[in-house]
Amino acid sequence: MKINQLNERALIAHISRLLARPGDNVVIGAGEDDCAVLDIGIGDYIVITTDMLHRKTDFPFQMSGRQIGWMSVAVNLSDLAAKGARPIGVVMAMGIPPDTELEFVDEIVKGMDECASKYGTQIIGGDTDAHDELTMAGTALGTVRKELLIRRSGAKVGDIVCVTGYPGSAGAALFALNRGIPPGQEVLKALFEPVPRIYEGIALAESRSVTSMMDISDGLALSLHDMSRAGNVGFKIYESKLPVLPYVKKLLKGDELLEAVVFTGGDFELLFTVAPDRIDRVRRSCPLTAIGEVIDRGVFIDRAGRLEELRARGYEHFKPAL
Amino acid sequence: MKINQLNERALIAHISRLLARPGDNVVIGAGEDDCAVLDIGIGDYIVITTDMLHRKTDFPFQMSGRQIGWMSVAVNLSDLAAKGARPIGVVMAMGIPPDTELEFVDEIVKGMDECASKYGTQIIGGDTDAHDELTMAGTALGTVRKELLIRRSGAKVGDIVCVTGYPGSAGAALFALNRGIPPGQEVLKALFEPVPRIYEGIALAESRSVTSMMDISDGLALSLHDMSRAGNVGFKIYESKLPVLPYVKKLLKGDELLEAVVFTGGDFELLFTVAPDRIDRVRRSCPLTAIGEVIDRGVFIDRAGRLEELRARGYEHFKPAL
Repeated sequence: MKINQLNERALIAHISRLLARPGDNVVIGAGEDDCAVLDIGIGDYIVITTDMLHRKTDFPFQMSGRQIGWMSVAVNLSDLAAKGARPIGVVMAMGIPPDTELEFVDEIVKGMDECASKYGTQIIGGDTDAHDELTMAGTALGTVRKELLIRRSGAKVGDIVCVTGYPGSAGAALFALNRGIPPGQEVLKALFEPVPRIYEGIALAESRSVTSMMDISDGLALSLHDMSRAGNVGFKIYESKLPVLPYVKKLLKGDELLEAVVFTGGDFELLFTVAPDRIDRVRRSCPLTAIGEVIDRGVFIDRAGRLEELRARGYEHFKPAL
Repeated sequence: MKINQLNERALIAHISRLLARPGDNVVIGAGEDDCAVLDIGIGDYIVITTDMLHRKTDFPFQMSGRQIGWMSVAVNLSDLAAKGARPIGVVMAMGIPPDTELEFVDEIVKGMDECASKYGTQIIGGDTDAHDELTMAGTALGTVRKELLIRRSGAKVGDIVCVTGYPGSAGAALFALNRGIPPGQEVLKALFEPVPRIYEGIALAESRSVTSMMDISDGLALSLHDMSRAGNVGFKIYESKLPVLPYVKKLLKGDELLEAVVFTGGDFELLFTVAPDRIDRVRRSCPLTAIGEVIDRGVFIDRAGRLEELRARGYEHFKPAL
């Protein structure tokens, strides 16, 4: 069997099954969550995550070097944010075509540095390699107090489902670019210079009121399915409650709008669940929108009173979206 | 200027200068050493390193999937070893051509797992990505007691220069493969299944007698120059003292032998310095060969009594060896 007959989730699950059983110091191991989490016998957990991006899939030609560098760091910080972790360092392995102009590399490095600095951390190391295709493999390291770690699992039936920001912004920009429409600045920035929700993640962890969390960079639908599987619960969200930028609502309608908001991915927002009696407290610590509730099983969307199953599709590396 | 007009050292130095100044928690930052080292306010330092390998340069077609996986982990563990660190986890971002057979991926993953397990750690996370060229970007995390950290700098004039193992083994295998000669099993294993000197690195750190250390995967000559620059000292090594496998001595003679032993790279051995009055103690904790001494400046090799300058060339990603 060739690997493109599997989707990325199935491939990761398959790979994880081949690995040795996690040792006692591994709180969260391969394939389980946005990050791996290690217990090294101190008050904090060590949180680590890695993401590989490359020219063909992740860096459209309209992206500047600075934006490529920014995104390569942001995608990793977003995973730390989803565990409520505080970043302590980023390393970046860069595969660069040998005929690349040094000035372009400089811009990439400045973008990496800018993103790391903005979220309280820095580039502490890396590797350079001559590669036909520009390839950026970043790893972010963070810490979180043991009692504050938030996992993908932990949601209880009745909890309120929340998101930060405006899902669909990156998807709308991608839609516009694909159709040759000049996208608005706000959505283009969401696509090319995504904001990792580090400070929101820390605030949500410190609220001690969030029962589960992950980031939605692969799309809201896929993330709800991930959290459903991890926590053995279901989700019902309401189309009418989804927070969408006015520009996106103007650009897209109906199913195209839903596609951008729940399936396309690219938004570095946090998806999380909160017990109903804690929601006011959480609102005070982080801007959020309540979009639905945790149910017993299945993942559904209420579209003007009509309940539809929300399929597990979104951003996939190996298998094209169906 | 295009980046292939720079060598990798110059490119890394250039990139490092563009980054923000290391914060107080960064003990060793970008471009300085084999690993980055963080102080998180506990008795141990956190040590982290990343390395990107890919099909065209790093995985000759003779390598099995298992060997590809093994090497992708070993190259990172070797950098931890060079700081005397104990590995606590490895994450691996894998860029895989979509038409790859799943069985081949399985072999790679088993090789990763095997190498991590053998050196007391495990694969705790990663990323998968569809990529035209097989690309493996690993990151290894370790810890070392603060007082035991060994840096590239620290050598004193008069210290004895030592190596583990048999440099030139990987180079001899590469030489044979390039000439269509079937290489001996021992050197082929050195090239395709390198042994990261984790246990030796820990023993050397615990001897509290090593003044500086790095790994020689880019070649002994380049590593001596790296340590010369880092420690503001020079080195004199003796051709006659270089430990070389009998097979390699039979296969290669004269300048070709020297080429494999000091320039080609690919040996995951440790290069380190020890004060003369400590050498016996260090010998008891780790098998080593003394190959020379630390001098005031310059990097030289004594070839049967004739002193030659040892040029700073070796394994380079961007600029072909001259």
